[in-house]
Amino acid sequence: MKYQAEIEIMPRKGLLDPQGKAVSQSFKNIGLDTISNARIGKFVTLEIEANSAEDAKKLADEATTKLLANLIMESYEVNIKEL
Amino acid sequence: MKYQAEIEIMPRKGLLDPQGKAVSQSFKNIGLDTISNARIGKFVTLEIEANSAEDAKKLADEATTKLLANLIMESYEVNIKEL
Repeated sequence: MKYQAEIEIMPRKGLLDPQGKAVSQSFKNIGLDTISNARIGKFVTLEIEANSAEDAKKLADEATTKLLANLIMESYEVNIKEL
Repeated sequence: MKYQAEIEIMPRKGLLDPQGKAVSQSFKNIGLDTISNARIGKFVTLEIEANSAEDAKKLADEATTKLLANLIMESYEVNIKEL
């Protein structure tokens, strides 16, 4: 069966996120001053051929840890949907 | 009240996604050949001070269209949660 994995990869909480800091400042500069604490990460979708949602989750985890995310700097969440 | 906006920004379907293409090829190279069609976008979280979830959604839309996404190349989805 075919599954779609949606993977959110974010910089870890304790770590600096210079891109997010810059964007937060820009919101102030353009008058959107009720917005703060922008954090910027990656959003990845994959199509996975697997026998079950559990297998698809395992493959998505493997793909993320081997290729997509740097687990020292980033944390991630995976959601699996049937296609 | 304080809300968190989660914004997914993805390259539009019809458009080339060279980063996603490269990653799809890499999955094959490392033996994860049941994974295909990687698409890579951005995931942004914001904290928004607003009177209602609707107002927060409007502010998140404004922030995304003015600063975060290029609507010619990218489409986006916003989710609002109360903090």
